[in-house]
Amino acid sequence: MVRKNKKKSCAILIIGNEILSGRTKDQNVSFLASWLNSNLGIKIEEARIIPDIEKIIVKNVLDLSKKFNYVLTTGGIGPTHDDITSKSISKAFKKKYSYNIEALNILNKYYGNQFNDPRKKMAKMPEGSKLIYNPSSAAPGFIIKNVICLPGVPLILKSMVHNLKKYLRPGAKIFSLSINCQTVESKIAKELGIIQKKYKKFVEIGSYPFFRLGKIGVSVVVRSSKKSNLQSCHKDIIRIMKNKKIKTIRGI
Amino acid sequence: MVRKNKKKSCAILIIGNEILSGRTKDQNVSFLASWLNSNLGIKIEEARIIPDIEKIIVKNVLDLSKKFNYVLTTGGIGPTHDDITSKSISKAFKKKYSYNIEALNILNKYYGNQFNDPRKKMAKMPEGSKLIYNPSSAAPGFIIKNVICLPGVPLILKSMVHNLKKYLRPGAKIFSLSINCQTVESKIAKELGIIQKKYKKFVEIGSYPFFRLGKIGVSVVVRSSKKSNLQSCHKDIIRIMKNKKIKTIRGI
Repeated sequence: MVRKNKKKSCAILIIGNEILSGRTKDQNVSFLASWLNSNLGIKIEEARIIPDIEKIIVKNVLDLSKKFNYVLTTGGIGPTHDDITSKSISKAFKKKYSYNIEALNILNKYYGNQFNDPRKKMAKMPEGSKLIYNPSSAAPGFIIKNVICLPGVPLILKSMVHNLKKYLRPGAKIFSLSINCQTVESKIAKELGIIQKKYKKFVEIGSYPFFRLGKIGVSVVVRSSKKSNLQSCHKDIIRIMKNKKIKTIRGI
Repeated sequence: MVRKNKKKSCAILIIGNEILSGRTKDQNVSFLASWLNSNLGIKIEEARIIPDIEKIIVKNVLDLSKKFNYVLTTGGIGPTHDDITSKSISKAFKKKYSYNIEALNILNKYYGNQFNDPRKKMAKMPEGSKLIYNPSSAAPGFIIKNVICLPGVPLILKSMVHNLKKYLRPGAKIFSLSINCQTVESKIAKELGIIQKKYKKFVEIGSYPFFRLGKIGVSVVVRSSKKSNLQSCHKDIIRIMKNKKIKTIRGI
């Protein structure tokens, strides 16, 4: 029986100098957060971006893997000198950094007579890892303990996530509803604060100003794992907008 | 005299449930990283995304402010109940969370007779803070010790960054050069590894595969605070591409 009620927490560890230098914009946090919640009811509670430095990777992996049910890393599992995630995680968990036979076979079949040493490196990982298959470019990710290592390239990562399902125990999905309104935050701040107190631990209310398509407004987002609380809170907010004669906007 | 040789390190702390839920994509890390490096020679060495929860903000602010020269936070300084950054940072540094008279005056002038309680909240911050002026929507950021608090909305944040300059001591700027080549990583991995060893501590070589505009290739990025090392390393890489008859691509 799959228990779905327990909250499942997760952290994302983005490994890569290119993200910290500003050269590359991370796209994986928002994708993984949405995917994990809607497919598995797993909530991202922290994300970190760190450089390609072994001792920093080791420290962060150990720290996050103790604090959360799961840790997803992205980046650093390719063939070049700056791809040191697999080796660092081996060190973190005191596992041998060695060839995974199944990964070697997959890559050998994929590359044929082009299977050179840098490509072979992509089959090296902590001993005892299980593979996360990669339908787009063959080189697999892996899971060791509660840490799951995925590549950094968003297109490849996206093609692999359905292969995570068998390794992760689902939690309680967070549902959300949005109310987009033509106002400024300070006009509804007091009332939202009162409603947040009313629903305290059951609903999380977020208020986000926007400036889009020539319109200024506020998106009020309510999130909860309990549908009934969510709907009741949503109604309370709609009522306030009506009382204050604030227009709600569709399609944003 | 401004010392420019010493490395200046910085962390970014993104505060906001909306980033962790996947609803909003962070745009501030890449902007701040590029801006801080090119304008002040300050390097981002870590970024964290955390939720709007006081004890988590307190812990992360204390942790990062000890480890790095500067910490920049984004988000949570608006007027609503979920804006708790200023209060949490007051707690972290055991400072009184109180009205800043200069900020009150700025906001009073800006809002006139619309200066209500939620807007007044935006003038509350840790006692002893100095203001970071906001030319786009008036509500200021602030600096307390080595922690600088900025808003989360990218457009507003961008309008404020030049006002940071007077508070931050410049470090050594990191220069970079890119070589985009029509190849796959595994074909150049061995040689790049050798060159990285040659330039060890002086140049950082990154290798990033790309799939763009129907072209598959690798961007090799070299970074260093020493221009002469950078150029010499860049030449070595260009030489390898020529020896291996690998085409370089312009305009990507």
